[in-house]
Amino acid sequence: MSDTPNLASAGGKIMLVGLGPGSHDHLTARARAAIAEADTIIGYVTYIRLVADLLEGKEVIRKSMTEELDRAIEAFERARQGKKVALISSGDAGVYGMAGPTFEVLFQAGWTPDSGVEVEIIPGASALNTCAALVGAPLTHDFCAISLSDLLTPWPTIARRLDAVAYSDFVVALYNPKSGRRTGQIVEARRLFLRHRRPDTPVAIVKSAYRPRQRIEFTTLDKMTDCDIGMLSTVLIGNSNTFIQHGLMVTPRGYRNKYDVESGATHHGEQAGRSLSTGLTGWRAGLHASGRSAAELAAEHRLPEDYIAALLAEPLDATQASDEANEVEA
Amino acid sequence: MSDTPNLASAGGKIMLVGLGPGSHDHLTARARAAIAEADTIIGYVTYIRLVADLLEGKEVIRKSMTEELDRAIEAFERARQGKKVALISSGDAGVYGMAGPTFEVLFQAGWTPDSGVEVEIIPGASALNTCAALVGAPLTHDFCAISLSDLLTPWPTIARRLDAVAYSDFVVALYNPKSGRRTGQIVEARRLFLRHRRPDTPVAIVKSAYRPRQRIEFTTLDKMTDCDIGMLSTVLIGNSNTFIQHGLMVTPRGYRNKYDVESGATHHGEQAGRSLSTGLTGWRAGLHASGRSAAELAAEHRLPEDYIAALLAEPLDATQASDEANEVEA
Repeated sequence: MSDTPNLASAGGKIMLVGLGPGSHDHLTARARAAIAEADTIIGYVTYIRLVADLLEGKEVIRKSMTEELDRAIEAFERARQGKKVALISSGDAGVYGMAGPTFEVLFQAGWTPDSGVEVEIIPGASALNTCAALVGAPLTHDFCAISLSDLLTPWPTIARRLDAVAYSDFVVALYNPKSGRRTGQIVEARRLFLRHRRPDTPVAIVKSAYRPRQRIEFTTLDKMTDCDIGMLSTVLIGNSNTFIQHGLMVTPRGYRNKYDVESGATHHGEQAGRSLSTGLTGWRAGLHASGRSAAELAAEHRLPEDYIAALLAEPLDATQASDEANEVEA
Repeated sequence: MSDTPNLASAGGKIMLVGLGPGSHDHLTARARAAIAEADTIIGYVTYIRLVADLLEGKEVIRKSMTEELDRAIEAFERARQGKKVALISSGDAGVYGMAGPTFEVLFQAGWTPDSGVEVEIIPGASALNTCAALVGAPLTHDFCAISLSDLLTPWPTIARRLDAVAYSDFVVALYNPKSGRRTGQIVEARRLFLRHRRPDTPVAIVKSAYRPRQRIEFTTLDKMTDCDIGMLSTVLIGNSNTFIQHGLMVTPRGYRNKYDVESGATHHGEQAGRSLSTGLTGWRAGLHASGRSAAELAAEHRLPEDYIAALLAEPLDATQASDEANEVEA
């Protein structure tokens, strides 16, 4: 007998379970089965409470919010003893969830996929999906998630991302926007966004989505810092096309760029099922035909000059030829 | 009797159902119940096939890929007749899914939430969540989703976003990366990324996640255009810290910025549960103490000079005082 961990003997398993918003209705079948299969459940106290009625007869280990590494270490210890351990996260275990710290701890301990402890990640809807579903359809175009928590990330990294996505007109979901101690980050996010976006850009603040204390507030970029925002809030900032109508926040997908939405007919020069006339091929052809300099075109399209110069330096023929070939096939 | 649509008479319902990856294991209880409750199911033929065994006795309307507006129009027509209609999308109905075009069509037709046709959005795990779960833990830090389809979005808009998030070091999920006809967009995405990112940046290409033909390929930014990429693929590009080890793609959350991952002890000058010393408050104090110009600091931190100048122009006292007050409370 020995206290030395024996990686080969185990047969244990770590299941990283994304609960979705937390109501049982929005659990996947696999998430529910994983919890049923587990000998041990480890999670932040609030997440444990969400599935309390599914835990009878199981070992339950409640951890505080900042003990992610401890949760992973305890999960691995038990899995090495042959236990099946469910590490639960609200939302998706892969999105700012337990999947990351767990692999960091496992790799550090010399774990490999063949070493007798299996790892399964069970995906779920993340906060951005569930909050979006409650407010309308804000994420129908390109979007990003940024955590405002500077507990593990230097502020310049966060600020650089806020600046970049404000400039390039993403829909943005802010995770961990504010806590009792961190109150300045959301103020800075607003400041960085207002350098590029209109003050009346629509914003939705969703708290405790699909839970008993759910609350949804619509506001604008300019006024969002006046709202009640906390650790259970997700802040959704629209792009330049997002609007709020009848209490719903919607980002148009872009059908109006091609179609008359009422009749379904395409606009002149556009074809259903084909790239826009301002899509890559058409736009490139336009750059070449314009006869303008890379600097002028870069300023017009707000793109790097060396990128435009590289496109102008390449002949169009290859792209055009292959597109025409495809048109004939179609 | 009249053919005029009567918005008030209905009692019908449109349910926008996100199926997740498509295997029944990963359906939420609510998604399954919504399909059971529906009289009519409308969806792209591939999605209908994913839930074919749940559709007995229901009216099923199969549409082709580009008929999103038609799907929404048909759903609304039936809901106005009092039917319960499930509009199904793979992934999340709100992420490049049917939620957007449905609201566009409804608003155009004069629908309001009080007009007798209810709309419910049922969130699911999107492709980025499910693909991430299969490859490891790539989304544990800030990430974004960009569709490379230029069927509804002008290329300069897409290019600007690619440039911005490559620069600011997001993990990126590319949706609709390539089709038989659209082959140049992924080449351009690579070109824009290589202006900012290392050629060996890890990339994962996931095809048909959780479906019988699932395939996962790991590659690098430099080589990704040589891989098999199609309409059923999602491309995940790591950030500057992402690594691939033992066949798993992991983006560290940042624990190493604060902790010794083996012992769990904090590094000198850092505190568990508190912002990093380079977090907003500490970083701002450092800017003020540096005695350097806004231009120098902007270059060092790769942030806009006017943002740094605005921070330098504000006294630190307010922020510091409130932080100290919080420390005392804690």
